[in-house]
Formats: sequence, C-alpha cells, structure tokens
Amino acid sequence: MTRTLISDTINKIGETVQIKGWVNTRRDHGKIVFIDVRDRSGLLQVVLSPDLAGSLHSEDVVAVEGLIKLRPEKLINPKLPTGTVEMNAEKVEILAKSAELPFDMGKETLDLELPTLLDYRSLTMRHPKVQAIFKVQAVIIDGFRKALQARDFLEFQAPCITPAVAEGGAEVFKVKYFEHEAYLTQSPQLYKSLLVGDFERVFSVNKVFRAEPSVTTRHLTEVVSLDAEFGFIESWEEVQEMEEYVIRFIFDEVAKRCQRELDMFGATLPKLSDKIPVIKLRDAQEIIYKRTGRDIRAEKDLDPEGEREICRFALEEKGSDLVFVSHFLTKKKPFYVFPDPNDPTYAYSVDLIGRGVEWSSGGQRLNDYQQILNNAKEWGVRAEDIEMYLQSFRYGVPPLGGFALGAERMTMHILGLKNIREGTMFPRDMERIDVSLRKNNPVTGQ
Amino acid sequence: MTRTLISDTINKIGETVQIKGWVNTRRDHGKIVFIDVRDRSGLLQVVLSPDLAGSLHSEDVVAVEGLIKLRPEKLINPKLPTGTVEMNAEKVEILAKSAELPFDMGKETLDLELPTLLDYRSLTMRHPKVQAIFKVQAVIIDGFRKALQARDFLEFQAPCITPAVAEGGAEVFKVKYFEHEAYLTQSPQLYKSLLVGDFERVFSVNKVFRAEPSVTTRHLTEVVSLDAEFGFIESWEEVQEMEEYVIRFIFDEVAKRCQRELDMFGATLPKLSDKIPVIKLRDAQEIIYKRTGRDIRAEKDLDPEGEREICRFALEEKGSDLVFVSHFLTKKKPFYVFPDPNDPTYAYSVDLIGRGVEWSSGGQRLNDYQQILNNAKEWGVRAEDIEMYLQSFRYGVPPLGGFALGAERMTMHILGLKNIREGTMFPRDMERIDVSLRKNNPVTGQ
Repeated sequence: MTRTLISDTINKIGETVQIKGWVNTRRDHGKIVFIDVRDRSGLLQVVLSPDLAGSLHSEDVVAVEGLIKLRPEKLINPKLPTGTVEMNAEKVEILAKSAELPFDMGKETLDLELPTLLDYRSLTMRHPKVQAIFKVQAVIIDGFRKALQARDFLEFQAPCITPAVAEGGAEVFKVKYFEHEAYLTQSPQLYKSLLVGDFERVFSVNKVFRAEPSVTTRHLTEVVSLDAEFGFIESWEEVQEMEEYVIRFIFDEVAKRCQRELDMFGATLPKLSDKIPVIKLRDAQEIIYKRTGRDIRAEKDLDPEGEREICRFALEEKGSDLVFVSHFLTKKKPFYVFPDPNDPTYAYSVDLIGRGVEWSSGGQRLNDYQQILNNAKEWGVRAEDIEMYLQSFRYGVPPLGGFALGAERMTMHILGLKNIREGTMFPRDMERIDVSLRKNNPVTGQ
Repeated sequence: MTRTLISDTINKIGETVQIKGWVNTRRDHGKIVFIDVRDRSGLLQVVLSPDLAGSLHSEDVVAVEGLIKLRPEKLINPKLPTGTVEMNAEKVEILAKSAELPFDMGKETLDLELPTLLDYRSLTMRHPKVQAIFKVQAVIIDGFRKALQARDFLEFQAPCITPAVAEGGAEVFKVKYFEHEAYLTQSPQLYKSLLVGDFERVFSVNKVFRAEPSVTTRHLTEVVSLDAEFGFIESWEEVQEMEEYVIRFIFDEVAKRCQRELDMFGATLPKLSDKIPVIKLRDAQEIIYKRTGRDIRAEKDLDPEGEREICRFALEEKGSDLVFVSHFLTKKKPFYVFPDPNDPTYAYSVDLIGRGVEWSSGGQRLNDYQQILNNAKEWGVRAEDIEMYLQSFRYGVPPLGGFALGAERMTMHILGLKNIREGTMFPRDMERIDVSLRKNNPVTGQ
C-alpha cells in the first residue's frame, strides 16, 4: 500500500490508507487508545485497540493502515487542519522504536530552558513549533534568492577559507592550512565587490565566521549571510531601494507561505509604510534628543537604546517597523566606504534597523582604483592582503554598492524569538559546538 | 537618461539610448573607431569619431549615448544576438579607467595557461566564455534546489565548524576554536541524516573541506556539495530513483536556460536513456572483464580505468552517458551504510558515474539505533564524536537514504572542462588561496 501524507487524509474519507510517521502523543481510555501520528505534513488522530497499540509510545516510528472517517461533530478539533477526521487503525508496523523521552514533547509550546533545548537539538527539532522556525528561515532565504534572480543577479558561492584578515580584527578563526595559516571569512564583501567587475550583479547565501569571545543573545560564531552587490548605480539611494525591494519580497513570501507558522508564534510581519523611512545618523540623533532629552548627538554611532528609540519614532511617526539609517561616519566604516562628496566626514552607508536592532548594513563602495589604494593605506590595510579585490578595480569597475542581511537575525526578529540560538539549527558559540564543549554533557554525561 | 541593457537595443532601432558597460575591444579605422561594449546582457558595436573615442581602451567602464540603427546587410554579425544593430555614439562618459591589460581579452577563447587564468581571476572572469561556466553552475545549483523543493524537501544550512572528525581521516582542516580545537566539515552527512528524524526530507547546498595533500585535476580543498537525504523509503532503489529525478531536472534546467553557454563550449548534456542503468559492482567488474580481458573482479572498488570502461559500456549498450554502480563493499563504506541482508558483505550504496568519473555517492543508511552503535564501535568511531547524530536515532528515525553531488564536478563534466579549477571561481588547493601561497605572485611580484 502506498503511503498517504497526513494532510491528504481529509480527502480520503471512507478509504483505507496507510500513513507513516512518529507517535506524537498517546492517550489510553480503557478499551480504546488514541495516538496522534505526526508526519511532515501534519498530525492525525488514530484510534486503536489496546492490543494493536501494544507498547507504542511517543516518537516511535510507525506505518499504520486503517479507515479514514469523519469525527463526530463534537469531537472535531478546529485547531488541526485534519481535525475533522480520524483513522480507525487496522494494522500497525513499527519502523523504529524510540527510547523514553527526557521531557514531554506533546505540549503546544516546548517549555525548556535554552541549554536543554539545544542539548537535545535532534529531538527538540521534532516539535511543530520549533520546526516552524526553520520553515520560515528556509522561506526567508529562498525569498532573498528569488528577489535577486528576478533582478538579474547571478548567484555565486563565496569562499569560506581566506588568505588574510583584510579588514583587521582579532575576532577571526585561524585554520591550519598545510604549512600555512589561513582564516575563516568574516564577510564575502571583497569577493562580491570584485565580482561586480565581472557580472555586474551578484548575490550569495554564505557562511561567515566571527570568533566572538562573549556569549550574547544575538551573536554566534557561524552564521548565514545573505549578500548582494551590484554596479552601475547612479546613487547610494539605489542601494537602499534595492534592499527595500528585497525586504518586501521576502516579507511577501513569508506572508504567502508561512501564515500558520507566524500564527504559532503570535507573530506578525514588521509593518511597512509605502516607503521605509531613511534618516541620516545626525538627524536620528537629533530626533532622539528632541523625543527623549537623551543627548547622543556627539556620538559616532547609535547605541542599542538609540536603535530602539529611532524604531519607536519610525513606527509612531511613519508607521514603519523598519527604518534605514544612513550617513555614518566614514572613519567608523571600512576602507572601501564611499564618502559623501558634500561632507566626506560622513559616508554613503546605510543600515537597516528593524524592531529595535540592526538587520543589515550596506551602502555605496568606492570604485576608483587610486582612491581605494589611498584609503587602504590610510586604514592600515595591506595591499597584498586584498590583491584579488584590487585587481578587479585596477581593470575598471563601475560605481557599485550592496548590502548584507543576517538570515538568523531576520528569522529571530520576524518570529519574536528571544535568542538567536533558537533561530539556528546547530548554533556555534564560545561554549557550544553541538554538545561538544558543554561542561555537563546531558547525553553521555561527559 | 535611463540605461538600456544591450540585449534590448535590438528593440530600440531609431531611438537614442544610453548603454553602460565595459569596452570589450577597439578597432581604429582612420576617421571611424569601432568599439564593442559589453554588459551583463551582451555585446554591442558602437561607432565613434576618433575625438569621441579619445584614449578609450579595453575594460574602461563607460556610459555611451547614441542612436541605435540597423547595420548594412553585409555587416550583420550572425554570431551576436545584437549583430543586426549598432550604435552611433553621440556622448561618451568614462565611469572608470582600466589599466593596460596583461593579455588579450578580446579573443573568442581565452588562450591562457591555468595558473595565469587563476592568478588574474578578477579579470579573466570578464571573458564571456569564462562567465558561461558560472552561469551554468548557478543553474545547476538552482535546479538542484528546485527539484527537491518540488518534492517537499526542506532546505537547511549545514554547519562548517564541527566538533570532531567523526569519519576519521587525516585530510581534515583544524580550526583554533577559542581554547579548543574544532574542524572544518568534510561532509554534512551526519547532520542531514539526523534531520530526517525531524523533517523527513532535507537538502542543503553547503561547503565541504578536504585537506587534500596533492594537486590533481579533480580535487580542491573547498567545494560545494549538493546534499539530499530523506526518510520512509521502502528500498535503496528509491534513493537511486530520487537522484535520477534530480539529475534529469537539473539537465532540463540547463538545457532550457543555458543553450548559448553549452554552444560556446561545443558541449552537449550527457545522453540519458529512459532509465539510467544500475549495475552492481561485481557485475560491473564482470562486464569489464568480458569486454576488455582486464580482470579486476577481485578488487574492492572500480579503479579510474574501470569507471571509464563501465561508462563506455553504458553508452554503447544502454545509450546512457551516466550509470549507477551499486552494492559496494560494506567494509569500504562508512559505519552508517546499510548492508544488503541477503549478502551483508555488500551494501545498499550507489554511486553515480558520469562520462568516466564519479559524480556522486549515496545509498540507504542504517536507521536502527543499536545497529548503528554496534557498527560505530566496529568501525572505530567514538560515540561521543557523533552524539547529536546518535541522539536522533535513539528517539526513532525511519528507514532513510540520500546522496551528494559535487557542484563543481557537475559543471566540469557537463561543459567538458579539463580541470576542476576552471569550474570554481576562487579555487583553493595546496598551492593557492586566490594569489596567496603562489611562489611568484604575478600581481605584486611577492
């Protein structure tokens, strides 16, 4: 008998079918046993005799044959897409037995401390609400790609192993590369920029690494970066507009494909006005001063409270959960940033702030070879560390810009997760690579 | 004036438009200068006065305004999609100057030694025939994803940093991970398998790393792996059939979207019969013996000549450029391989051989927790090194299998490239990370 997906059982009333999946929960009622079987498409209530149910328990993997029938009206479960039907089991085959569970997986929300959630990652990812996170993440990433493919961007595979630490910083992982030393990339910035000289428009979904020596709710050592870069721009605003287009595209995809997942978290997509507001850093600081009396007008950046306040402003005054902040200080940005010719202290850089935190950074980049060389020198970047990048500009690259979005951060802030680790299947930080580095390993006790 | 893409100029005859791109070639004919301008969409011939042409040379980045007109019949270039039109330039703006080129980029095929091709990667990727390689590669990767999304597979992001060398081997890169040692992943195998316990069907496009201590035409230290894994299979043949479906899907995408690129290489997609032949290792060895007299029947694997011969057989006798070889020796495969119950010396493993070389490996995996534990022990794999994986099977995983395809290898063998480095934008090997590690760095001379 061919397997029927659980979501299809509502179309099979009166038919005997086979379903396959995991025992989600079991309820014994004397002469009748109820189990909910879970597969990738949903949950189905199965009614069995105690004989047939045997010692079945949560997470056993089963193939069950039986008759699909309508439930009596008062037993309909409106919360389940298959809540109008159930199966009368006739045959049960166990495909794999599960050990006893270390905690209850049957609740609507997994009520676990974060370390336990992650120590048991293989198991906890079976929970529908945890699965929802990664379905949304897959749609975010897919939406990013589709948006850019529709605008003629070529997908490329950014390298992880890099020859040098171009942009400085101690927060880089070293790799023993045969007799040499190499590094894990902190950003595909130089690669995507140089590729504009070849393909005009490129994007990549790639890993970036930071040897972040502290444990925070929003940093990991390995994350997924959504990078785009394109040439022949007329102004830095084109970069901001392209990013806005991509964001709207992603939100539309999530709205279309993930309504059930959003509902599970009581989440709504960030509210957008007709045009996401764009505010210069200095104006943002002025706005914050006027609204709150807190004077950060002399600061070189927005602090976390400043990011939250400018978001409150954007929502209250402009009806937008997202806001672009532009014109950061040139000297606070990398050597390739494009200074505003009218006031070179500030740069054509633009960050996206969403729901109180930074979602992305981007902007226009320098494309004049001599200016890049001069800046590299001024910033203390060695030419031999960025050779492949310099080569491109030596042979002519048009005015260009781009941006990078963090996939896990977007997932986190769309669903309202408290910690970026919840939005990462296998989070890596100072204290964790899977269960390795854990002081009290819950699985082996080592 | 808004930019017109070069491919659109054939629809703009009689109009004055602006194009932007690179000077591809320049030909001076006394009172007239011809330049070909290249953008991401194609090439256009532009006619200028010597005054307007000034010192323009190859790879200068320009914006040119002018009238699009039909070429005289005898000057039509049938090789170019825009070969029926040309532009009479009225205004030229230089967006970026290029240095003098180190070699001629204007030929139909870049006639360079491989080291030069790669040392000047930023520049050589501007050549249309080099660009074609990466357009095909993007379509292969996109096709892989689309094929599996259509079959309900969830995309996941496989980690690069791993806690242990689970499957042994000296060919692994070490990462200094704070006070610990970590490793770059050799394969997402354990992650994709454990995820079958969560999502049933998963795929990923991910980086894998091998500290390959030799320089060959088909190995790199960092490559893109196309991984798929799925559960509730009835037999190992389902794995082979899913892979065949994916391969056909990818070929269809390449055929639909890359005919021009294939033509540039005189390449044709591998020929497929109605069903790709599947031959057991022992039968393949027997066939080779009968066809050639070469007796490798006692060998534990197919050697390179064996792979070539079985491909010749498949093409001549079955009309297929691809052939699956199954039932390799259990002991030659990793600990999770599923032995054939009828003869456990051989396993339910299946490799895809295409045009004489291995394209992928896959097969059914063990899903019984105790059997996995036993095998891990027998294979010398430490349980604590594969904990997250074991956890999944401890709590019930259905019968499963999967496969992995190499993106660069597929690109190479579809286009008939001689070296895998040609099919990789930024190849990494023992002797190269970009221009780093090169003895005579051609760019800086360092």
